[in-house]
Amino acid sequence: MHKVQVNLRKNSFLLFVSFLLFHSCKAPADKLESPKTEQSVVKTNYLALESWADAPRQRIETWMKEVTDSASPKFIPVNDRIAVFDNDGTLWPEQPVPNQVIFAIDNLKAISSAHPEFQKDQVLKGILNGDIDPMKKEGIKGLTKLVNASHNGQTEEAFNTAVRNWIDTARDQKFNKLYKDIIYLPMIELLNYLRAHDFKTFIVSGGGADFMRVWSDEAYGIPPYQVIGSYGDLKYEVKDGKPVITKMAGQVYVDDKAGKPVAIHRFIGKVPVFCGGNSDGDQAMMQYTHGSKYSSLNLIVHHTDSTREYQYDHKTLSGHLETALVEAREKNWMVVDMAKDWKKVFSFQ
Amino acid sequence: MHKVQVNLRKNSFLLFVSFLLFHSCKAPADKLESPKTEQSVVKTNYLALESWADAPRQRIETWMKEVTDSASPKFIPVNDRIAVFDNDGTLWPEQPVPNQVIFAIDNLKAISSAHPEFQKDQVLKGILNGDIDPMKKEGIKGLTKLVNASHNGQTEEAFNTAVRNWIDTARDQKFNKLYKDIIYLPMIELLNYLRAHDFKTFIVSGGGADFMRVWSDEAYGIPPYQVIGSYGDLKYEVKDGKPVITKMAGQVYVDDKAGKPVAIHRFIGKVPVFCGGNSDGDQAMMQYTHGSKYSSLNLIVHHTDSTREYQYDHKTLSGHLETALVEAREKNWMVVDMAKDWKKVFSFQ
Repeated sequence: MHKVQVNLRKNSFLLFVSFLLFHSCKAPADKLESPKTEQSVVKTNYLALESWADAPRQRIETWMKEVTDSASPKFIPVNDRIAVFDNDGTLWPEQPVPNQVIFAIDNLKAISSAHPEFQKDQVLKGILNGDIDPMKKEGIKGLTKLVNASHNGQTEEAFNTAVRNWIDTARDQKFNKLYKDIIYLPMIELLNYLRAHDFKTFIVSGGGADFMRVWSDEAYGIPPYQVIGSYGDLKYEVKDGKPVITKMAGQVYVDDKAGKPVAIHRFIGKVPVFCGGNSDGDQAMMQYTHGSKYSSLNLIVHHTDSTREYQYDHKTLSGHLETALVEAREKNWMVVDMAKDWKKVFSFQ
Repeated sequence: MHKVQVNLRKNSFLLFVSFLLFHSCKAPADKLESPKTEQSVVKTNYLALESWADAPRQRIETWMKEVTDSASPKFIPVNDRIAVFDNDGTLWPEQPVPNQVIFAIDNLKAISSAHPEFQKDQVLKGILNGDIDPMKKEGIKGLTKLVNASHNGQTEEAFNTAVRNWIDTARDQKFNKLYKDIIYLPMIELLNYLRAHDFKTFIVSGGGADFMRVWSDEAYGIPPYQVIGSYGDLKYEVKDGKPVITKMAGQVYVDDKAGKPVAIHRFIGKVPVFCGGNSDGDQAMMQYTHGSKYSSLNLIVHHTDSTREYQYDHKTLSGHLETALVEAREKNWMVVDMAKDWKKVFSFQ
């Protein structure tokens, strides 16, 4: 039995978790859109689980048949069909370093000309000159400096524009593709498959909500109001007659580990019946999903494919997977062996 | 120009706002359900604004025509059609005292046998014996005691059941109806009308999110994940192998005044284009809506009908309406004169 208090006030713990967080996310998206809009790469034919090997596909389809058949004792009413997904390592890659850290560095550079004060800080100055050693030396403090300088003090509008510009142009080094084009095709099929069966799909990620919301609809067909992530303080004011919301340094809600079921309660208000994740950070929301009164399905993406993607689990800080794998075996959660269970990883491969 | 910092850490201010809050909400709902479910009183024929007088109906319809006509310069893409509504005094009454306070008192009584410690507190003991004078004497402190004792320390499941039982049985004294049956028919029509035009409808209320979410779908057709309200700390733990979320006394996020646009950013991530409210507590989210890049519509319900409902504005603490009315005149926001503009207030009248 473990007991976790979620009120993360203590700065040291908070920053440590932030650090873990930032070492557990990375990358990309195929052009999709929510049902009503155009530009969709994930078209109707992606409603079937075509990129899945037979065994995992059948397991998902069997569960789906049971929970959507109104004559079945396992039937789940439409209003209770809530599906939650981690993002980094579950919908897009999180190696070798979380994409949001790349964005933070790129955005620091993009806004630096308007911030001469960055040059006075050794960490920020180093990053701007391509030297991240001073940041590494300061550890969590250094990373926090980067995130604060690149994310906070910006208006809602300015930050959205910055993320928009970045996601439309920034490329991953391994695949030489836009980050938003490097998303897991089988998971996109799964999102569509769930929605085709009247599920509401939510992201519940340790990444920043403000960062993900800009492109989640385009990438995954998940609108911003179904994106839950880490979030910080905000300030509302009317400036020269114009309402302005500004992102503030301050208390951060870390949507990871026990923070995930708490955020699900806070933002969704229902216990999920489907949960997809890939790390121990998702274990608490899988327990929570497992505790549903309905027949639930938990799915863990196990990164076993060093050729097509990355191979890692318990030896990485980023996307660390160890205790969740043990609990998955005990409770018969579905573990997806990426190398074996996915016929395709990305649409471009 | 006003500037409001939203980080509400200071207990005194927080409690004062809580007090105002609790003095600005009250009551009921016609049996409706979200699109996919049955039991709906608000049927397809409520898609038209039939309970509205001609002038306000035409104003709403004209705006709707402009923003949904793809050939119009005022066209709003479906993904950006976000409508937000206050609850107390906007969708259901808030006089003479907020319904959630009645629930708090009723629930205190309901759970008191399991809490002998309530008898040791003069305020709680008084309430249990039908004497609210000790609570009144302690002012904010007394009210906080009531809310804490009746809301917190309860699991998600227990609290949901308590609200469910209450909303299914508790009756308002003026109308002798279930609270959930005393909802404004013209606003239900408006919610349906907006949804029929592909708007997403959200509640953004000073009331407790956990309280509203239990019945918002049935009453308004608004699912729990589109209900934003005040919220407190939560604890997640695994108890005897079962995941449990418990409501904790602690820091409260007060979703009122400047807290409303901040919560809209935090939960929705888009600037609304429609906002319905009734008090100065809704003014900030109306400014925020007014600041949309699209043609927006703000609507203020002005309680002018002492016969069919209640007559009040600037003289009440509960639902105080004064500065928002001034700004409404300056900015041509729509002010609904309940007595003149609503042919019917409730479906049962």
